[in-house]
Amino acid sequence: MSNTFGETLKVTIFGESHGTAIGAVIDGLPPGISIDWDEVRREMARRAPGSSNLATPRKEKDQIEILSGYFRDHTTGTPLAMEIRNTNQHSGDYDILKDHMRPGHADYTGFVKYGGFNDYRGGGHFSGRITAPLTFAGAIARQVLEKEGIYIGAHAADVHGIRDCPFHPLGEEKALFDRLDRKKLPVIDEEKGKAMEEAILAAQKEGDSVGGMVECMICGLPMGLGDPFFDSLESEMSHMMFSVPAVKGIEFGSGFGFASLFGSEANDSLHYAGEKPVSLTNHNGGVLGGISSGSPVLFRLAVKPTASIGKRQKTIDIAKKEDTELSIGGRHDPCIIPRAIPVIENAAALVILDLLLTDRRNSHVR
Amino acid sequence: MSNTFGETLKVTIFGESHGTAIGAVIDGLPPGISIDWDEVRREMARRAPGSSNLATPRKEKDQIEILSGYFRDHTTGTPLAMEIRNTNQHSGDYDILKDHMRPGHADYTGFVKYGGFNDYRGGGHFSGRITAPLTFAGAIARQVLEKEGIYIGAHAADVHGIRDCPFHPLGEEKALFDRLDRKKLPVIDEEKGKAMEEAILAAQKEGDSVGGMVECMICGLPMGLGDPFFDSLESEMSHMMFSVPAVKGIEFGSGFGFASLFGSEANDSLHYAGEKPVSLTNHNGGVLGGISSGSPVLFRLAVKPTASIGKRQKTIDIAKKEDTELSIGGRHDPCIIPRAIPVIENAAALVILDLLLTDRRNSHVR
Amino acid sequence: MSNTFGETLKVTIFGESHGTAIGAVIDGLPPGISIDWDEVRREMARRAPGSSNLATPRKEKDQIEILSGYFRDHTTGTPLAMEIRNTNQHSGDYDILKDHMRPGHADYTGFVKYGGFNDYRGGGHFSGRITAPLTFAGAIARQVLEKEGIYIGAHAADVHGIRDCPFHPLGEEKALFDRLDRKKLPVIDEEKGKAMEEAILAAQKEGDSVGGMVECMICGLPMGLGDPFFDSLESEMSHMMFSVPAVKGIEFGSGFGFASLFGSEANDSLHYAGEKPVSLTNHNGGVLGGISSGSPVLFRLAVKPTASIGKRQKTIDIAKKEDTELSIGGRHDPCIIPRAIPVIENAAALVILDLLLTDRRNSHVR
Amino acid sequence: MSNTFGETLKVTIFGESHGTAIGAVIDGLPPGISIDWDEVRREMARRAPGSSNLATPRKEKDQIEILSGYFRDHTTGTPLAMEIRNTNQHSGDYDILKDHMRPGHADYTGFVKYGGFNDYRGGGHFSGRITAPLTFAGAIARQVLEKEGIYIGAHAADVHGIRDCPFHPLGEEKALFDRLDRKKLPVIDEEKGKAMEEAILAAQKEGDSVGGMVECMICGLPMGLGDPFFDSLESEMSHMMFSVPAVKGIEFGSGFGFASLFGSEANDSLHYAGEKPVSLTNHNGGVLGGISSGSPVLFRLAVKPTASIGKRQKTIDIAKKEDTELSIGGRHDPCIIPRAIPVIENAAALVILDLLLTDRRNSHVR
Repeated sequence: MSNTFGETLKVTIFGESHGTAIGAVIDGLPPGISIDWDEVRREMARRAPGSSNLATPRKEKDQIEILSGYFRDHTTGTPLAMEIRNTNQHSGDYDILKDHMRPGHADYTGFVKYGGFNDYRGGGHFSGRITAPLTFAGAIARQVLEKEGIYIGAHAADVHGIRDCPFHPLGEEKALFDRLDRKKLPVIDEEKGKAMEEAILAAQKEGDSVGGMVECMICGLPMGLGDPFFDSLESEMSHMMFSVPAVKGIEFGSGFGFASLFGSEANDSLHYAGEKPVSLTNHNGGVLGGISSGSPVLFRLAVKPTASIGKRQKTIDIAKKEDTELSIGGRHDPCIIPRAIPVIENAAALVILDLLLTDRRNSHVR
Repeated sequence: MSNTFGETLKVTIFGESHGTAIGAVIDGLPPGISIDWDEVRREMARRAPGSSNLATPRKEKDQIEILSGYFRDHTTGTPLAMEIRNTNQHSGDYDILKDHMRPGHADYTGFVKYGGFNDYRGGGHFSGRITAPLTFAGAIARQVLEKEGIYIGAHAADVHGIRDCPFHPLGEEKALFDRLDRKKLPVIDEEKGKAMEEAILAAQKEGDSVGGMVECMICGLPMGLGDPFFDSLESEMSHMMFSVPAVKGIEFGSGFGFASLFGSEANDSLHYAGEKPVSLTNHNGGVLGGISSGSPVLFRLAVKPTASIGKRQKTIDIAKKEDTELSIGGRHDPCIIPRAIPVIENAAALVILDLLLTDRRNSHVR
Repeated sequence: MSNTFGETLKVTIFGESHGTAIGAVIDGLPPGISIDWDEVRREMARRAPGSSNLATPRKEKDQIEILSGYFRDHTTGTPLAMEIRNTNQHSGDYDILKDHMRPGHADYTGFVKYGGFNDYRGGGHFSGRITAPLTFAGAIARQVLEKEGIYIGAHAADVHGIRDCPFHPLGEEKALFDRLDRKKLPVIDEEKGKAMEEAILAAQKEGDSVGGMVECMICGLPMGLGDPFFDSLESEMSHMMFSVPAVKGIEFGSGFGFASLFGSEANDSLHYAGEKPVSLTNHNGGVLGGISSGSPVLFRLAVKPTASIGKRQKTIDIAKKEDTELSIGGRHDPCIIPRAIPVIENAAALVILDLLLTDRRNSHVR
Repeated sequence: MSNTFGETLKVTIFGESHGTAIGAVIDGLPPGISIDWDEVRREMARRAPGSSNLATPRKEKDQIEILSGYFRDHTTGTPLAMEIRNTNQHSGDYDILKDHMRPGHADYTGFVKYGGFNDYRGGGHFSGRITAPLTFAGAIARQVLEKEGIYIGAHAADVHGIRDCPFHPLGEEKALFDRLDRKKLPVIDEEKGKAMEEAILAAQKEGDSVGGMVECMICGLPMGLGDPFFDSLESEMSHMMFSVPAVKGIEFGSGFGFASLFGSEANDSLHYAGEKPVSLTNHNGGVLGGISSGSPVLFRLAVKPTASIGKRQKTIDIAKKEDTELSIGGRHDPCIIPRAIPVIENAAALVILDLLLTDRRNSHVR
């Protein structure tokens, strides 16, 4: 029950969509890391609204400010704190949402959980906006990982039933990940990408939204990260991913596809490639017994359609205690996938760096 | 990186398949709970091998012994420790597995992670046998939940592509869960069950195995359990479920099916049923913003085919550093789902009781 | 290894003395608490420098700013984040301290631990200034406790060997604690207070400093807080107190005085006072077997003399790798006790509220 | 609120004095450690009752049994579980203690905390007997530390006011620690030891008990262990030490003696001894800013007189709800210090190994 994630690298996030500021405290970063802030800002810009016609045109003039933990261009080893002041708030827009519970959102569960004291403006602490500090923290982790030769990429595997070409389970070049990073809708197959865009814009026109799937891959991971019980790599990764709003499912490797495989098909055989044992298949998505196997870590996430839609919906008015209808005004993402992808990649980086730092402690006292 | 799960109710497990004993320490159980040990043993018998022709005929004469924490027929409030002595070990059967890495198992990742010091006999600490103490702990949690009106059920939603009738997303009667509990292969649709059995036995005949899906439902949960960041109900549940060997995916509610829904279809509308707001759909699987919504919690797990198969497979011999072939002798489960179901139900009970106990602390200082 | 304290009420602190800002994130505060901010500021002013002739005349124009977690005059139940911008920094004053390690400070241990990357200005993250956000968090906890009838007081039990009259081990009136709160040097015996002041001012004149002891008492605590292993009330309290800079010892009740008592003298007998069992002595300082006994919690802390002194001291220059001498310029506290007292009281409040909230979860599922 | 201690090396303990078994699960031990079990048994024998005329003549035929985590003479890297079956229980002896609350014990606080469900026989989970598994775990940690050149020693610094010669604050030879280990009452000054023995036996004759102080030193620790907030070396050590029954105070270095020192006396100056900075004093007990300074870690503990005494004491009968008198029969330790010393040394080893393993993770990603 806590806004802190991680065992060795602990990230604490705070803030509400329309409060004074949102931010993060990152505790456990090794000292002496020089951070490329432009790169961090670039990752955050990918997540920011207003970046393309596929996302909400809302602008967030998000200025990150480092409060502590960075001195003479290096991490100090003590907590690195960051904040983003909330601006462009239009809190008044949200007055109706005090009593009219948005379907598909946590408005009513939050109301009950917090006894009516939660900040309801823009979803408050439930807002997707809280993923900005998460992306920030992950972007730092990602830089550390890249120096270790670990690369992360993701793409829109599916938008409203239109499927992109999947990653090759045995790994992809970093160049592909770099190309994907620069796209407003990261896909491998451009034709599919165009069809997806059309589906998104069509839904938007109707005041509606669409969901899909994101596929994420982590290459270059050493063997041995994660534990059989209870902190498997899959456990840690899924724990984090279900903190990303709209994620409703996760599968590793063949995932739900295992249901139609025989064991003899599903087992990844081992072979010697010179001195090094390798697998020529990756049904297990780079994780065996909860531990990284040396094959790329590969997982897919189910992303639900944006809950905020313009279409008129049935819901309740908790002040009047009666049924009502609601059309959510304002500018919403007709599909959250383009903006979810950088959140997912960077959140994955946090998980992996935490596992990596945690693993390092075990290897030296014998 | 730890064999302990839970925030308020902490369960620590230990043991290897062929070591002296396996067991659990449960810390945080409230004092004064009277446990129905017959019921605990019944849950453990459901998980035990040798219970039907669908499972390995291996027998484990598992005697649970309570070491502490239970006095005069009630929990004391201090750690409840339990052990099961390992018997029927035939360790010799496993000598070949010291060097021949079983594909689809953690033999080689474990070898690397633990520098070759792990107990390789029967999978050691990676063995499915370690789920026995987990089932034990969960069976106690389940009894506590039942007194609170919270019921858990699961069934084989899919075996090798044969699909059972799903749970009704708005809830099922406890009577159905009770009926499912008594079946060797818990299914709702008996016809489908027979087809599944045939598929399992056919695979077994070939020295092969099959996978599938398990659907699990939790009814009677109060609203408000779980947190938006980072300990959502989905995060906690998936963290636990990926500790159950062979689980490779999890989806809540419509899960991956959200990819083809519009927001206007996917959002669960709210209505007043008298004083009480309810939803007439449950696409979100009982969780909104990471928090229990009052609808039944509903999730499906992807279960991979048993990795241990009799069929000859390619693999490596790490002593000789050369490729080899391996046919895993002994008696294996041709499909792990019948035995995984009680593990899943009881592990889910642990997660829910931990969330429930954790939640209670928040509600009293105002 | 973490800047987060607490199990149910988690406080994360960040910042360096001369960085951009210092602050705290408080996670786990129940929703619906209305905070008296003037009272919080009053507690922080007690800790602030420049408040009397006994403390450093440095002024910190500390403005607390609430970043999140407080909405419409109540806590939301989500993280309450706060920051204080650093002003009046005179970083240049500290240039010499980059290489000249101050004796009695963590300059050199910090240099080694963080590989030379720590912020050395004003002690960086080791600075006593980091107790400002701790005091802030504790002042909120204290308000919650007071509503529950739990009061905390502390006084200068000893300054350079001059001893104040001790608290009565069976408890003191809140009125006494209130009077102590308003004194620049909180003592019970004014005569002793004057002698202490003289000792402090005499040391200051010599460019030196003095230490002493602080006695702290918590009245009104219910029985049953804390655990035998490993989270005894004494364990939790000492864990926190040794985070307060300059604290080098803690004793509960008769503490080191137990060395000269017989068991028959040391045991606190129980008697019925009407329906209620009470003790007429409190040698155990309100804690038995790690658990609050219902008697006031009473502990004393050893506080070392301020390490920063004007007097010339021998030390090392790590740049030149040679011995040198150092006279620490600037304005220092000749005795830290007057400013440590509010830190101690409020940090104690954090510990107690965490124990109280943690305890609440145990009492409801039977 | 948990029977688990440690961040990287987690020890979970369980059991009651007169339950079926007591034991420990050690999670996080690196794989590949070969343990000298005779040495572990020797440490446990030092703690066991019946070892000398200064301790209770009760015999515990404690057989340790390893349940998991040790394979082919090395740790596996997965949980090492151990149990000791309780024998020689004489539970009947304790029937009177169900209702007659022993003064100075946790009988009544435990009764209230656990709602009357705690095991009252022999103190149940509060019993000093629970330190046996703690000593076991610590004895393993100690062996690991010794291979790293880290040595721990302790002695009876004070028994009922009779003071032993203190350790030299700049360190002692391992040979002295070894000699102390073999004594039934570890003291440096044999004359003082004899006087202490007489004081103990005299108290015993009166059906009474005495307390004292234990001084503990850790030599060979590298610089940099521990953190400024909140997990200082002092915080971690005191957290553990207050879990050792009868410990009521802890001070590091000059501790409460700082109250009469000037800053100019108390600061440990630094000098170059060749390339290496050293201090010629150790007022800070080897810890500066919460971090190990390279000087030996030195602390003293206040140990209260054994609460169980034969002398008649006033107390309450909670069944009859009336005052009564109690003379505790059976065989008790007239002074717990001889048996507390090995517990303290080994518990200290656990803390240090945890800090060491935790520290290792930070040093590799730059």
